[in-house]
Amino acid sequence: MFQSTFCRDKCNFPLVGLIKVDLILSYLIDSLTMNGSGNLMDFLDEPFPDVGTYEDFHTIDWLREKSRDTDRHRKITSKSKESIWEFIKSLLDAWSGWVVMLLIGLLSGTLAGVIDLAVDWMTDLKEGICLSALWYSHEQCCWTSNETTFDDRDKCPEWLKWAELMTGHSEGAGAYLLNYFLYILWALFFSFLAVSLVRVFAPYACGSGIPEIKTILSGFIIRGYLGKWTLLIKTVTLVLAVSSGLSLGKEGPLVHVACCCGNLFCSLFSKYSKNEGKRREVLSAAAAAGVSVAFGAPIGGVLFSLEEVSYYFPLKTLWRSFFAALVAAFTLRSINPFGNNRLVLFYVEYHTPWYMAELVPFILLGVFGGLWGTLFIRANIAWCRRRKTTQLGKYPVLEVIVVTGITAILAYPNPYTRRSTSELISELFNDCGALESSQLCDYYNNPNMTRPVDDIPDRPAGPGVYTALWQLALALIFKIVITIFTFGMKIPSGLFIPSMAVGAIAGRIVGIAVEQMAYHHHDWIIFKNWCRPGADCVTPGLYAMVGAAACLGGVTRMTVSLVVIMFELTGGLEYIVPLMAAAVTSKWVADAFGKEGIYEAHIQLNGYPYLDQDEFTHRTLATDVMRPRRSEPPLAVLTQDSTTVEDVETLIKDTDYNGFPVVVSRESERLIGFVQRRDLTLAIKNARQKQDGVVSNSVVYFTEDAPQLAPNNPQPLKLRRILNLSPFTVTDHTPMETVVDIFRKLGLRQCLVTRSGRLLGIITKKDVLRHMAQMMNQDPESIMFN
Amino acid sequence: MFQSTFCRDKCNFPLVGLIKVDLILSYLIDSLTMNGSGNLMDFLDEPFPDVGTYEDFHTIDWLREKSRDTDRHRKITSKSKESIWEFIKSLLDAWSGWVVMLLIGLLSGTLAGVIDLAVDWMTDLKEGICLSALWYSHEQCCWTSNETTFDDRDKCPEWLKWAELMTGHSEGAGAYLLNYFLYILWALFFSFLAVSLVRVFAPYACGSGIPEIKTILSGFIIRGYLGKWTLLIKTVTLVLAVSSGLSLGKEGPLVHVACCCGNLFCSLFSKYSKNEGKRREVLSAAAAAGVSVAFGAPIGGVLFSLEEVSYYFPLKTLWRSFFAALVAAFTLRSINPFGNNRLVLFYVEYHTPWYMAELVPFILLGVFGGLWGTLFIRANIAWCRRRKTTQLGKYPVLEVIVVTGITAILAYPNPYTRRSTSELISELFNDCGALESSQLCDYYNNPNMTRPVDDIPDRPAGPGVYTALWQLALALIFKIVITIFTFGMKIPSGLFIPSMAVGAIAGRIVGIAVEQMAYHHHDWIIFKNWCRPGADCVTPGLYAMVGAAACLGGVTRMTVSLVVIMFELTGGLEYIVPLMAAAVTSKWVADAFGKEGIYEAHIQLNGYPYLDQDEFTHRTLATDVMRPRRSEPPLAVLTQDSTTVEDVETLIKDTDYNGFPVVVSRESERLIGFVQRRDLTLAIKNARQKQDGVVSNSVVYFTEDAPQLAPNNPQPLKLRRILNLSPFTVTDHTPMETVVDIFRKLGLRQCLVTRSGRLLGIITKKDVLRHMAQMMNQDPESIMFN
Repeated sequence: MFQSTFCRDKCNFPLVGLIKVDLILSYLIDSLTMNGSGNLMDFLDEPFPDVGTYEDFHTIDWLREKSRDTDRHRKITSKSKESIWEFIKSLLDAWSGWVVMLLIGLLSGTLAGVIDLAVDWMTDLKEGICLSALWYSHEQCCWTSNETTFDDRDKCPEWLKWAELMTGHSEGAGAYLLNYFLYILWALFFSFLAVSLVRVFAPYACGSGIPEIKTILSGFIIRGYLGKWTLLIKTVTLVLAVSSGLSLGKEGPLVHVACCCGNLFCSLFSKYSKNEGKRREVLSAAAAAGVSVAFGAPIGGVLFSLEEVSYYFPLKTLWRSFFAALVAAFTLRSINPFGNNRLVLFYVEYHTPWYMAELVPFILLGVFGGLWGTLFIRANIAWCRRRKTTQLGKYPVLEVIVVTGITAILAYPNPYTRRSTSELISELFNDCGALESSQLCDYYNNPNMTRPVDDIPDRPAGPGVYTALWQLALALIFKIVITIFTFGMKIPSGLFIPSMAVGAIAGRIVGIAVEQMAYHHHDWIIFKNWCRPGADCVTPGLYAMVGAAACLGGVTRMTVSLVVIMFELTGGLEYIVPLMAAAVTSKWVADAFGKEGIYEAHIQLNGYPYLDQDEFTHRTLATDVMRPRRSEPPLAVLTQDSTTVEDVETLIKDTDYNGFPVVVSRESERLIGFVQRRDLTLAIKNARQKQDGVVSNSVVYFTEDAPQLAPNNPQPLKLRRILNLSPFTVTDHTPMETVVDIFRKLGLRQCLVTRSGRLLGIITKKDVLRHMAQMMNQDPESIMFN
Repeated sequence: MFQSTFCRDKCNFPLVGLIKVDLILSYLIDSLTMNGSGNLMDFLDEPFPDVGTYEDFHTIDWLREKSRDTDRHRKITSKSKESIWEFIKSLLDAWSGWVVMLLIGLLSGTLAGVIDLAVDWMTDLKEGICLSALWYSHEQCCWTSNETTFDDRDKCPEWLKWAELMTGHSEGAGAYLLNYFLYILWALFFSFLAVSLVRVFAPYACGSGIPEIKTILSGFIIRGYLGKWTLLIKTVTLVLAVSSGLSLGKEGPLVHVACCCGNLFCSLFSKYSKNEGKRREVLSAAAAAGVSVAFGAPIGGVLFSLEEVSYYFPLKTLWRSFFAALVAAFTLRSINPFGNNRLVLFYVEYHTPWYMAELVPFILLGVFGGLWGTLFIRANIAWCRRRKTTQLGKYPVLEVIVVTGITAILAYPNPYTRRSTSELISELFNDCGALESSQLCDYYNNPNMTRPVDDIPDRPAGPGVYTALWQLALALIFKIVITIFTFGMKIPSGLFIPSMAVGAIAGRIVGIAVEQMAYHHHDWIIFKNWCRPGADCVTPGLYAMVGAAACLGGVTRMTVSLVVIMFELTGGLEYIVPLMAAAVTSKWVADAFGKEGIYEAHIQLNGYPYLDQDEFTHRTLATDVMRPRRSEPPLAVLTQDSTTVEDVETLIKDTDYNGFPVVVSRESERLIGFVQRRDLTLAIKNARQKQDGVVSNSVVYFTEDAPQLAPNNPQPLKLRRILNLSPFTVTDHTPMETVVDIFRKLGLRQCLVTRSGRLLGIITKKDVLRHMAQMMNQDPESIMFN
C-alpha cells in the first residue's frame, strides 16, 4: 500500500530493486561456483557482498552503517602504513569528502543558474519574443537596446509582443485578446509538457521533494528518488512548471535537484556509495547547497539543512555543508543570472530605520502568517487526501491542465499576477526609491520639497497606488486559493515563493496603509514621536518582507534558518528584530492550531516512517508497545543449537519479520543475538546448493563450536557469522519516552525487550511510530512500510 | 585529586556541597518526624526530595533528567485542564524559557557594555587622565573638545598625560620615563587587584572558563562555578585584567559571565533550577549570548555555542539561543560602548575586490595560523603542566605580578603593544582610507594623481610604513611569547584577542609586502593581469583579517562559527572565500600535528570527564572495558530478596561505587535493576531511624511483594521504589565504538554488560574515558572524577 499511495502512476523502481537483488544473488552463487570451495564457513570469512545493502522502502540501521564505516576506515589506516601508494590512497580517501562537496557545489550552482536563465526566457516567451536574438529574455533584449531609459524599458523596439508580431497592432482589444489567448496557450503547453515528462520518465520528480528528502535523510530507502533520471527530468520540468505561470516556486525542487547531484557524486566514491549512513551526510550538505542557490544565502542554507531536513548532522558535516553551500553560491554568482552581480534572489536596501511602534503591525503580520500557514496546511492536506482517495488522483495530467488553465485565465488581467512570482516579490520588497516607474510608487510629489537621492519623504498616495492596492488585494485572494490546489500536483512545485508572495502582498498593503495613516494623521499620539511631515518614516517594502517571512514561517515552521535567510537578503542586522518578531508570532499562532509544518503533514499523509524530533510525553512502557501482545502467538525465535534447516525455512515462509532473535533454548529464553531475515535466507540458500551434507534436517548452530556428531547425522550448518551478537535490548519497564529517544538518537531498526534476562518481545521502528500515532489519536494504519 | 588540581588555592565549594547534603538530609528526617508516619513505604510514595540532585564533581544522567522533565510537563499539562488558574500557570511555565532568554540577553548585554566602558577608561588611565571629567576615556575626553581635528585627536588640551600633570612637561626624557614608570605601576596595581580578588573571593573566576563550561554542558557538576559570586568577581577582575595591558582578551570570560547570568536566572524558575538537563539548555543559549556580545555577532554566537561548547543542543534551544544572542547584541548596541553605533567589535569596510592570485598568500597565512596554533597549544600546555606540578603553582599572585611587570616593561616602548590589543587589531584590520593619520598609512603620494575618496591607489611605502613594519615584527614576537605564559594564570583571560592579534600582525606584514611587491613589480606575470600602476589592488587590512581568522582557527579549531563571526564583522559575502581558505588550511595544518584545540587540551590537562565528539575507531569490545577485570574480585551486586540490611551497609562501606546492580540470585545472575548508592544510603538511614522493626538482619526486598514472614522474623525492608527497573545494558560482544556512541548520545553514567541474559560487569563513563585515553596512548590516570 505504501507503494500504491506513493507512485500511483508508474511504479517501476521497486521492481528494479527486486531485479537487482536477484542479480547480486546469482553473482554470489556464480562466484562461489567458480572458486569451487563449496565451504560455507570459508565463504563467510570473506565479506558478504550483499550485507549492508537494504531493500527498497526499508529503513537503514544507522549503528551498523557507522560501524561498517569505522571498519573501512580502520582498514585504510592500517594499510596506509604499508606503502606509499596505500598512503596516497588513504589521503585521497580522506579528501574525497571535500571533492564531493566541491562537485556538488559546482553542479548545483550551474544547474540553478541554467534554470534561472531558462525560466526567465520562457516566462517572457508567454508574452512575446526578442527579435534581435530569440534566446534573450525581455530584460536582456532591452539591455542591448540603447534607446531606452529606465522608465520605458518595457518598450524597446527589439521586443515584440505576440499580437504585434502577428498582426502588427500592439494596442486595442484585439491585440489584448490575442496576447491573452497566446499567454494561456503557452502556459498550457509548458505545463502539459512538464506533467507528461514527469509521468512518463520520472514519477519521483514531482512535488517539492523536501518531505521525501527528510524521510530519506532519517534513514529510509527510496530507490531512484535521487537518481540521474530524476535529476534530469526534475531540472527540465521545473523550468517548464515555473514558466507556465503556475503558483509555485523553484526553491524546494532545487533542494531535490541538489540532493540528486549529491547522490550522483556519491557513486564516484565507494566510501559514500556503499554506506547509506555516509551517503546521508553528503545529502545533508547537498540540501544546504540547494537552499544556498535558491536564495543566495549560504549560511541560511546550512541552517535550513540543520533545522529542517537533516536527521544526523555531525559537526564535520556542518563544515562541509558550509563549503558546498559557498561553492554553489559563488558558482551561481559567476553565471550571474539576475544580471545584477548580486548573490541574492531579492536584493533590498532600505534607508530608514524602523520604530518601536511599528512592531504592532509587524506582529499583526505575524498573526496573519500563522493563520495563513494553518489554513494552507489544512486545506492543502484535505485536498491532497481527496486526490489520493478519489478518482481525481487518476487524472494527473488533466488536473494540471485544468489548474494551469484557470491560473492563466485569472492571472493575465491582473498585472501583479501576470508576471512571475519572484518578480512580484522583488517589486513588493523594494523601496520606492529604486522603482519610481512602478504603479506602487505613484505618490503626489510636493514641488516645494527638495529630494535627496536616498531619503524620500512620505507623501500622499496617488491614484496609481490605490489601483495597485485593489489589484494586490485581488492577487492576494487569487494566490491564497490557487496555491492550495497547486501544491501537490504531479509536477515539480515548491511553496517558498507562493507563500512569500502571499505574505509580501499582505505586508505591502499593510505597509501602505500605515504609511498613509502616518502621513495624514501625523498628529496622532503614536505617530507624533517619530513621524513628522516631510520625513521618511514608513518603508512599505519592509512590511512586505516581514509579511513574507511570517507567511513562510507559518507554512514551514522554520525559525532560525528563516530569519537568517531573510537577514542575508537584507544584509543588515538592523531589520532582524522585525523579522524575528513576525517569525516568532507566526510560529506561535500556527503551532496553537497544530504542531506540524507542511512537510511533516505531507510525510504523515504519505505514511513515511519518519520519527520526528518532537518530544514523546506519554506515560507508556516498553511492555505496552512490544510485540507479541497478550492475544498474539508467541515471538518467532530461533534457538542456538536445536533448530533444523527446515524449521528455519518454515519460519521464513510463514512470517514476514525482518529478523529473528536467537535464544539459548525455548525454556530459558535467554537472548544470544539477532539474525537478519535477509542474511538467513541467503546463507541457507547457498548452503543447500554448495555445502555437502546440508539437508532439511541439518541442525543450525549459532554457537561458537558445533558439537562433534556421529557420522550418520546430517552435516550441521554453522551460522554464527551472520549472527549479530550485540542486539539492542531494553527492559520491559523502560518508559516509552526513553525508547523513542533511543530509536531516534541511535537510529535503530528494532530493539529487543527483556525482563530479568529473559526475552519477552520486540519493538520495531514501525511499532514505535504506530504507538506514537495512536497516542496522538491519529490513524496508526497510515504508516505503511517494512 | 581532581579537586586538588582544580582549585589549589581555595576549595570551599565542595565543602559547601557536603554541608548542603547534610542539611537536606536533616530536613528530610525532620519532616518525617513531624508527620510522624514512620512508614517508609508511605514516605517513598511521596517524591523523594533529594533524588535528582547530584553531588559535586559527579556526572549527571541525561536520560533521567529528561524523563523527570517529561513527568513534570505531564503533571502540568494534566493539571492545566482543572482550572483557569492552573491553565495560566501552565502558560507561564511554557513561557518561562523565553523570559529566561530575555533576561540573559538583557543582563549579559548590559554587563558587556559596562565592561567595555570600564576597560576603555582604565586602559587610558595608565597613560593619563581627562581633566574635564575624570571618568572619561581618552577618546571621550577629546570628543567634547572642539579644537581637535582628526589628525591630532590625540592632543586635546583636556587630556593630560601623567608626567604633564605632575611636572608640567609633556616632552623630554624625564617625562617619558615618568610616564613609563606610572604605566608599569598602574598595570601592576590592576593585575594585583585582579589576582587578589580572584584568590580571595572566587577561585573559579580565573581563566577563560570555556573548558569548564564545555565540561559542565556535557553533564558534569561543578558547584559554584557559575554562581553569583563568580559572576560578580569575574566581571570586576576581567576589567582589571584587560586594563592591566596583559596579553589577554575578554571574549572567553564574557562567555563565562553570560553563563553565570544564565545560571542566575535559572534559579528563578523551578523548571530549570531543579533539572540539570534543562539548566544546560539555558546555559548553551547563554554561551551564544556571550559570544554575541563579545563580537557583536549573534549568528556567529549561536554557531559557536553549537559547534564549540554545547553538548546537547536540540532545535528548540537553537531558536532560543538566537533570541538571547539578539537581545544581548541589541542591548549592547543601545549602550553603544564603542561610540560608533556599530554592533561589531571591529567594523571594517573594504573597497577593493580580492584576486585569485591572492589566495596564495591567504593560504600561506592559513599555514602560519595552523603552525601558531600547534606551537601555542603545545607550549601553553607544557607551561601549565609545569605550573601544576612544580612550586610555581603555589605563588599565583607573584606569577601574575611578574608577568604583568615584564609585559608592561616590554610593551610600553612599542606603540603597537602599548595600546590595548583590540585597538591594535582594529587599526590593523582597517583600510588606509579610514586612518590616514596612522604610521601604517605613510605612503608617498603622487601629486599628479587625483584621489577619489574610497579608491586609494597603491603607492610606494614611506619611512613610516617601514618603521611600523619593524615595530610590528617585534610586537609579533613579543605577543607570541608572552601569550603562552599569560593564558592559564589565575586571572580571567581569554585568548581570542591575543590569537587574533598575532594573526593580524602577521597578516598586515604579509599584506604590505604583497602590496609593495605588486607596486614595484607590476610587470611580473602574476601581477600583470590584475594590478596596473595607479590601481588599488591589494588591501593589507584584508590580509590582517585573514591572518586573524587563521590564527584563531589554529588555536581553537573553530570552523563554521569562525567564518560566520568574521563574515558578520565585514558584513559582505565578498570576503568569505579568503577567510574560508585560511580557516580550512589552518585547521588542516594544525590537525596534522594534533587533533585537539586549546579547550580540549585544557580539559584533558585538568582531567575533566569530557567525552568529546571525535570518533572512536579502535576494535575493542565491551568485554575488554567492563569491570571487574579477570584478576579483580567479582562485581558487587545485591540480590533481590536475600541481602540483609547489614550486608548492604557493609557493601556501601567497603566500596565506593556510585550504584549497584540488583540480580535475581547470585547463582542465576539475571539482572533486575540498578540502585543508586546515594538513594540506598538515604533509604536505609531513614528506615533504621523511623521504621519499626528494621534491624541489621532485616532482609532487603527489591521484589514487588515481600513474602509474609513468621512474626519472629525481623521486619523486611522494601526498596523497590528506589530501584531503577530500566538500567541500560549491552552485550559483552558490543563493539566499544557503539558503546562510546551510546554513552555520548544518550548521556549515560553507566551501562551494564550482559551475556545471554547474565550480568557480567559494568562500564561507567570513567571506564570509557580511561579506555579511550589508553587507546590514544595517553595517561589514563589523569581522569579524576567520580
